[in-house]
Amino acid sequence: MIKKAVILVSGGLDSATTLAIAHNAGYACYAISFNYGQRHQVELESAKTVSSSIGAIEHKVVHIGLDDIGGSALTDENIDVPQNTDKGISEGIPVTYVPARNTVFLSLALGWAEVLDADTIFIGVNAVDYSGYPDCRPEYIEAFQTMANLATKKGVEGHLIKIETPLIHLSKAEIIQKGIELGVDYTQTLSCYAPDEEGKACGRCDSCRLRQQGFEAANIPDPTLYSSP
Amino acid sequence: MIKKAVILVSGGLDSATTLAIAHNAGYACYAISFNYGQRHQVELESAKTVSSSIGAIEHKVVHIGLDDIGGSALTDENIDVPQNTDKGISEGIPVTYVPARNTVFLSLALGWAEVLDADTIFIGVNAVDYSGYPDCRPEYIEAFQTMANLATKKGVEGHLIKIETPLIHLSKAEIIQKGIELGVDYTQTLSCYAPDEEGKACGRCDSCRLRQQGFEAANIPDPTLYSSP
Repeated sequence: MIKKAVILVSGGLDSATTLAIAHNAGYACYAISFNYGQRHQVELESAKTVSSSIGAIEHKVVHIGLDDIGGSALTDENIDVPQNTDKGISEGIPVTYVPARNTVFLSLALGWAEVLDADTIFIGVNAVDYSGYPDCRPEYIEAFQTMANLATKKGVEGHLIKIETPLIHLSKAEIIQKGIELGVDYTQTLSCYAPDEEGKACGRCDSCRLRQQGFEAANIPDPTLYSSP
Repeated sequence: MIKKAVILVSGGLDSATTLAIAHNAGYACYAISFNYGQRHQVELESAKTVSSSIGAIEHKVVHIGLDDIGGSALTDENIDVPQNTDKGISEGIPVTYVPARNTVFLSLALGWAEVLDADTIFIGVNAVDYSGYPDCRPEYIEAFQTMANLATKKGVEGHLIKIETPLIHLSKAEIIQKGIELGVDYTQTLSCYAPDEEGKACGRCDSCRLRQQGFEAANIPDPTLYSSP
C-alpha cells in the first residue's frame, strides 16, 4: 500500500524542498497551503506551481482568518515588515512572527490527514536559520506530535501520526543543495515577506536575506527574481 | 491588574456555562467563535447573544475552511447527521466528529491570547458526556497545554499559558445547575446539530438528547425551543 503524507507547502524554498524529500521517499503527497490574510498572497501561486511541478497528487488551499486576530507584520497592515539596510538578520522574536501560526497550520494538516487516512505530516521547519520563531524548534514539534496522537480518532485507534521535519537540523545552504539534487526548480518558489504584485522578491527582508546567504554558502547562483537592484 | 482570558464560545449550553464561570471568577473575558462551514451557522448568532449577555468584553468570529477538509456530518452535506428514534446515544466516535476541531479552535484561541497578552484559555470540554470525541479528554488538554507553552512567544518568555476546563468532570445536569446558579439564560443557547432556519432545535440529534437528559436529571424545566413535537 502506498503511504500517504500531508505536506505543508507555503510556496517558499524550505517547504518546496520538504515536498521533494517526501515525494522522493515514496509518499503519495497531499500538499496543503493556507490563505491567512498574509500580505504576500502571491506565494499561494508559487505553492500551486511548485506542488504540481514536484508531483503532489492534490494541492489544497484552506482559508483561515488569522488576519482577524492580528499581531503580526505579515497579516497586519499597521505593523511594518522590517527592511534591513545592513546585512544583519534581526535578533529575537521578530514582528513577522504570526501568533500560533505553525500550530494552526499543523492542526489543519492533522484534520486533513485524518480524512485522507494519512499517517505522516511533513513540515519544513528549521532550527538553524529559524529566525527566532518558537514554533520551529524540535521540542515544539515533539509536543505537537504527542498532542496530535491524543487528539484524533486515528491516534485513539492506535495508528500513530508522525510529524516529519527533514530540514530541522540543516543549514539553508544544505537545504538548497538537497533540493537541487532532487531537481527542485527554485525559480518557482517565493520566500519574500513583501514581494511585488508580479511575485518578485524585495531582496531586503529577513527571509530574502537568509535565502541569499544560503545560495552564497552553497556556492550556487541565486535564481531568485528581484524587484529592484 | 485584571486577568484576561480567551473563552471558546460555540453558542451551546456548555460553552455559555464556561463563559459564565470565567466571568464569575473575575476574568476579563474575550469570547471567540468559529465559522467553519458548519451546517448550523445559526449557532453563531447564539454565540453573539450569549457572549454579550454574560458580559464578554469582545466577541470575535474567526473563519476557518474546515469544510474544505470535509470528513464530518457537521460540515459535509454528503454525510447525514444521525437522527435517533430511540432514546440511545450513538456509541463510538460519531460521524459528527470534525477532524482535529478542538485542536484547530484552541490553536486560534492561543494566537488571540498571545495578541491580547492573556494567560488563560477556557474551553467547555467534558469527559463525562463527551459523545466519543477524543479531543475532549483530560490527557488531550494537558498535552495541548504543554505544546502551547513551547509554541509561543509568551511560553518561551516564561509566562505560562493555562488551558482551563471547568466542566471536564461535571455531568450535563451539574453543568446546567451551575449555569442556573450563575444566571445563564439557556434560551439564548443552541446545542442542536441540525437546527431549523429560525434556530429552533431538532430534538432528535445526539446533542439535543444529551441536553434534554441533562435538564431532566437536573430537575429543571427544559427551556429549549424545538422545531417539532
